[in-house]
Amino acid sequence: MSSSVSRPSGRAADALRTIRITRRYTKHAEGSVLIECGDTKVICTASVLEKVPGHVKGTGGGWLTAEYGMLPRATHTRGEREAARGKQSGRTQEIQRLIGRSLRAVVDLSKLGERTIHIDCDVIQADGGTRTASITGAYVAVHDAVEWLVKEGKLPASVIREPVAAVSVGIYQGVPVLDLDYAEDSACDTDMNVVMTGSGGIIEVQGTAEGAPFSRAELEALLNLAQAGIAQLVAKQQAAIKE
Amino acid sequence: MSSSVSRPSGRAADALRTIRITRRYTKHAEGSVLIECGDTKVICTASVLEKVPGHVKGTGGGWLTAEYGMLPRATHTRGEREAARGKQSGRTQEIQRLIGRSLRAVVDLSKLGERTIHIDCDVIQADGGTRTASITGAYVAVHDAVEWLVKEGKLPASVIREPVAAVSVGIYQGVPVLDLDYAEDSACDTDMNVVMTGSGGIIEVQGTAEGAPFSRAELEALLNLAQAGIAQLVAKQQAAIKE
Amino acid sequence: MSSSVSRPSGRAADALRTIRITRRYTKHAEGSVLIECGDTKVICTASVLEKVPGHVKGTGGGWLTAEYGMLPRATHTRGEREAARGKQSGRTQEIQRLIGRSLRAVVDLSKLGERTIHIDCDVIQADGGTRTASITGAYVAVHDAVEWLVKEGKLPASVIREPVAAVSVGIYQGVPVLDLDYAEDSACDTDMNVVMTGSGGIIEVQGTAEGAPFSRAELEALLNLAQAGIAQLVAKQQAAIKE
Amino acid sequence: MSSSVSRPSGRAADALRTIRITRRYTKHAEGSVLIECGDTKVICTASVLEKVPGHVKGTGGGWLTAEYGMLPRATHTRGEREAARGKQSGRTQEIQRLIGRSLRAVVDLSKLGERTIHIDCDVIQADGGTRTASITGAYVAVHDAVEWLVKEGKLPASVIREPVAAVSVGIYQGVPVLDLDYAEDSACDTDMNVVMTGSGGIIEVQGTAEGAPFSRAELEALLNLAQAGIAQLVAKQQAAIKE
Amino acid sequence: MSSSVSRPSGRAADALRTIRITRRYTKHAEGSVLIECGDTKVICTASVLEKVPGHVKGTGGGWLTAEYGMLPRATHTRGEREAARGKQSGRTQEIQRLIGRSLRAVVDLSKLGERTIHIDCDVIQADGGTRTASITGAYVAVHDAVEWLVKEGKLPASVIREPVAAVSVGIYQGVPVLDLDYAEDSACDTDMNVVMTGSGGIIEVQGTAEGAPFSRAELEALLNLAQAGIAQLVAKQQAAIKE
Amino acid sequence: MSSSVSRPSGRAADALRTIRITRRYTKHAEGSVLIECGDTKVICTASVLEKVPGHVKGTGGGWLTAEYGMLPRATHTRGEREAARGKQSGRTQEIQRLIGRSLRAVVDLSKLGERTIHIDCDVIQADGGTRTASITGAYVAVHDAVEWLVKEGKLPASVIREPVAAVSVGIYQGVPVLDLDYAEDSACDTDMNVVMTGSGGIIEVQGTAEGAPFSRAELEALLNLAQAGIAQLVAKQQAAIKE
Repeated sequence: MSSSVSRPSGRAADALRTIRITRRYTKHAEGSVLIECGDTKVICTASVLEKVPGHVKGTGGGWLTAEYGMLPRATHTRGEREAARGKQSGRTQEIQRLIGRSLRAVVDLSKLGERTIHIDCDVIQADGGTRTASITGAYVAVHDAVEWLVKEGKLPASVIREPVAAVSVGIYQGVPVLDLDYAEDSACDTDMNVVMTGSGGIIEVQGTAEGAPFSRAELEALLNLAQAGIAQLVAKQQAAIKE
Repeated sequence: MSSSVSRPSGRAADALRTIRITRRYTKHAEGSVLIECGDTKVICTASVLEKVPGHVKGTGGGWLTAEYGMLPRATHTRGEREAARGKQSGRTQEIQRLIGRSLRAVVDLSKLGERTIHIDCDVIQADGGTRTASITGAYVAVHDAVEWLVKEGKLPASVIREPVAAVSVGIYQGVPVLDLDYAEDSACDTDMNVVMTGSGGIIEVQGTAEGAPFSRAELEALLNLAQAGIAQLVAKQQAAIKE
Repeated sequence: MSSSVSRPSGRAADALRTIRITRRYTKHAEGSVLIECGDTKVICTASVLEKVPGHVKGTGGGWLTAEYGMLPRATHTRGEREAARGKQSGRTQEIQRLIGRSLRAVVDLSKLGERTIHIDCDVIQADGGTRTASITGAYVAVHDAVEWLVKEGKLPASVIREPVAAVSVGIYQGVPVLDLDYAEDSACDTDMNVVMTGSGGIIEVQGTAEGAPFSRAELEALLNLAQAGIAQLVAKQQAAIKE
Repeated sequence: MSSSVSRPSGRAADALRTIRITRRYTKHAEGSVLIECGDTKVICTASVLEKVPGHVKGTGGGWLTAEYGMLPRATHTRGEREAARGKQSGRTQEIQRLIGRSLRAVVDLSKLGERTIHIDCDVIQADGGTRTASITGAYVAVHDAVEWLVKEGKLPASVIREPVAAVSVGIYQGVPVLDLDYAEDSACDTDMNVVMTGSGGIIEVQGTAEGAPFSRAELEALLNLAQAGIAQLVAKQQAAIKE
Repeated sequence: MSSSVSRPSGRAADALRTIRITRRYTKHAEGSVLIECGDTKVICTASVLEKVPGHVKGTGGGWLTAEYGMLPRATHTRGEREAARGKQSGRTQEIQRLIGRSLRAVVDLSKLGERTIHIDCDVIQADGGTRTASITGAYVAVHDAVEWLVKEGKLPASVIREPVAAVSVGIYQGVPVLDLDYAEDSACDTDMNVVMTGSGGIIEVQGTAEGAPFSRAELEALLNLAQAGIAQLVAKQQAAIKE
Repeated sequence: MSSSVSRPSGRAADALRTIRITRRYTKHAEGSVLIECGDTKVICTASVLEKVPGHVKGTGGGWLTAEYGMLPRATHTRGEREAARGKQSGRTQEIQRLIGRSLRAVVDLSKLGERTIHIDCDVIQADGGTRTASITGAYVAVHDAVEWLVKEGKLPASVIREPVAAVSVGIYQGVPVLDLDYAEDSACDTDMNVVMTGSGGIIEVQGTAEGAPFSRAELEALLNLAQAGIAQLVAKQQAAIKE
């Protein structure tokens, strides 16, 4: 399917951007990862907090939550600093809720103890796909934080069920393509973010027609691309973890 | 597929709740609709404002946006009033962004003139599916507001391309079912909201695994249910508009 | 006194608008009422919460409070949504404080137990007199919530001392008139809201000269009108409660 | 009527507290007044701003508005600083709206030119009656600001129609009394604030039953006391202005 | 050094403005002081609160904090009321943090007991140097509050180590001068605030080049001026306390 | 002076940490620098915006402003995200005001044209001295942004007068030391931040006694250390710029 499109990046329709995962990127967090998907760069940290929010207290289990931010000049033109504006945008809230849901789906919170894993994903350079890069990177940070908990003797064993990763797909110039960069994202008709586990289960599908509606057949093609891409991302995560 | 599940409501797996659409529900708005999907009741108004936001000014075109709210006691237990708390929740922002995107997909904004259609969806009683009911009801309100513009001589013809409606589907006790009510929604594993046009184009697909991940086969089954359900909803809209 | 004025509505100077009180309007709240005063429509709910604010804790008694809101397009032109703006207006706060004071005046909080009755008054259509309609409707909602507490065995007997209702009066074209609708309200010189109990005690009098100051004689005439109107409103409340 | 009550202050039932009005209290404002009503002390300034809010622009007329505040330790126990808390209380907003309405009632805004008189009333010591002292003091500040406008040649003549002053009255131990101080205010059943003009016209009446409802007869008695008290306050204002 | 400059006020380069300290200025606060430095007038109150912030709880010691505000028309042109705007400016926060640090430096918090001294500095008229006047005045208010604690038997002895006072210095028309008023402050190149104890220890030095950078020699000259000025201010504080 | 102190880092009393300045660190900003001072790492970007704030409009000149932030887990324990909390702390505001003032002191804004240089300093890892590292790094970012303006033909020549850099000094275990890291900063008695130009002019001196007050002699020693340190920092900046 993929041969005829001319992507701005020169990539094949089913090609991911170059992925780099740097563990222990900053020194304070229990898990700290720099993930680079092409020119998109996100610092993902996982902090272990010995407290839980009110709705979890007394359940014996733990919690995992996520926050997302973007440095004001991570983008082509400077965006307003959310801390200065006094509130997070709807987009920011959507993204951080998605990151949290995605990671909760692969962590057995009932065995985490009464503590919270707090993920922070901060985009230092944006070139499309910041929310999916955040999820893919956050998984490695959470892995490292859980490993730290085990090493410290705070958990008897890992509470992670399986890996999770995410990628965007879209229809660019009529052709389904994998892993949109900014140039493609801003020009494509349909944009879909897919979150899947290492074993191929779907955690989240969010597809949006930016211009013309899309068909079931296009949806199928996009899901196929995403599935193959996520398999590659999970392999990259596993490789990084083994280092 | 649907015969073996026992839904709390006694409905068949592929059955919608009773839908009622009341036009001209309140007297001031250019379009005003009460939509009832079973016990979920939403007032949807479409207001015509003779102004546009900054990013549209000077383009010659118009804009459409949406806001969503819920009366504090629309739900089983009283929720905090967002106006008193001083901010809208992330959930509210996600929903109102979804409503806006869905309706913009079927309105030709370039022909609307320099004006805004402002949708307000206010839930007065909630029993699951408030966001999809909002979209389905908002379409009728927008239709009436556009018809008003035409009658007033402010537009030469309708700027609506086709109808749009939305429904939720989910996997309840292992069985894909259509149009979740609250009892099902709070107990189901996977929840998906689908927005489609009258001609069957997909505008938005948002599927989330609340518990276990879901498979491609399940995704297909859910999409089939949604497609059939939306066709019925569009028929209800058309019938209401003809009254 | 009332014969010579020509009210936009055609009503006599001492005539109320048509009043309709619908109990059990929504299904979740312990008390839920739709009150319609002409074209003004307000949903009043009374929620029973098993907690009290800090200043009441440990006193053995309970509390009653109220919040007020207006759907953005309840009015001729769309008003900004307070939740989106991030704060309630001064007008909203004045009104909700008035509703709370008025209802507290007829409920024996010392016998309510350590719980709160939380009133929500949400205007779905506005045509003048929304705050007085809110008080009149909220009384019935509170009545139903207290009755529910008695039925559930949480209270041995009702804690309501007597009914309370409210009405606006004003000087329109030089003539004192009862129960102002929007057309009158926006054109009248003096506007007064009166809250009284079923036995004729005054709970609150708020009279404001919008244009020219008013005299003691005019004040007396307005109070007479209000007193007669409130007696009728209390009768309507009693009739609704008996249904 | 007044002889039998024993007021904490030892005053007769119809006696005002000692009133002192100091003009030109601070040096920057066009009008600046310290008003002392017994131990209640309020700085009232009137600032002339050469701009008007949006709803007045282009009407040819001007505007008058008011803000109210209280130093945190103006009261027996320290109150939270509203600037630190990030919002004004409902009480503050009610009071500043009342001050604005009261002063607008005696200023001919249509002749003020496209400018705003901005009143600030800041309580530096509170002992009951801060809102009524604010109105009485603000009148003198506005007078001085208007006089300044005339002196500067910005207005051909004063735009003030007549004086305005305010006082509280209440039922203390069953007896109607004038000008409540804090000890009385916190113990009385009914509290009423009355705003009247120099010629005896009523601008605002706000009576509230704190405990038991009050009767028409009590209301009359309170209004009589207020009317006599306001006449004395207006005389004090006139004396201060003549100095 | 000081003879050749012509200051707007006519003062010598090393001359303070007239200082007046009025104790017991308002009646409710445990310490209440009006400090006047020329035309700059600040009400400083010290309130004793029988509670401490979270980070102090359980340490056995107490806390001291400060808030700062300015009446809107304390200045030449009316400033926005911070309570109405909904947040304190960066300048306000800087100043109140400085006041708190300065006073904490001379109070032995470990012996205060589990209570807080809450300082409020409110500028009622501004003519330069409001932050340094606040510190100098706050010291006397804190002194009085601590004396009250001793008199009430809540503390066995004073917990104040020594006095603290503050003054501004700057380079005006090339000459170092003491105690800048507004006319000098707005025209000077370098502005420095110095906080020192009665025994000459430095608590805080904040020097800022508004225009051209300043040299070490200028810095020395400014510190000399400040040191002499603060000695005079401490003498004024001691005289006031002895009254 | 420096020999006898045993610093946690093993550095001599007058030794800076290792400084690394990486230009063009992110790709979108006109100037983008990563500055590392030991384990303190700050991304400093300078964005050119073709607009100015209101108080500069029409003056013909430009503006320079700065914002500062810290990733939540830049520190030992996770700090609250300011964007989530809805406001910037007083500390953040103090720092960003200091950065802005420091850079404005060396840029000739009158020749910048009607545009703004907007600096963003975001700490990705904190180990003491984040504000001074921000200033030192921001200078290089501003240099690059101005160079970009010249290259683009938007400015005829650089508008930077001279370099500016900053360092912290303090008294640690009784000994004045240069460039405090976190371990020293949290244990030292006196902390001073000094901002100086390349030619040795002082822009800002902010010295605070955290515990005991400090003497004039100590202040002199600290200034000497700072002066020598800043000379080295300016040399590092110049070396980086020449690369």
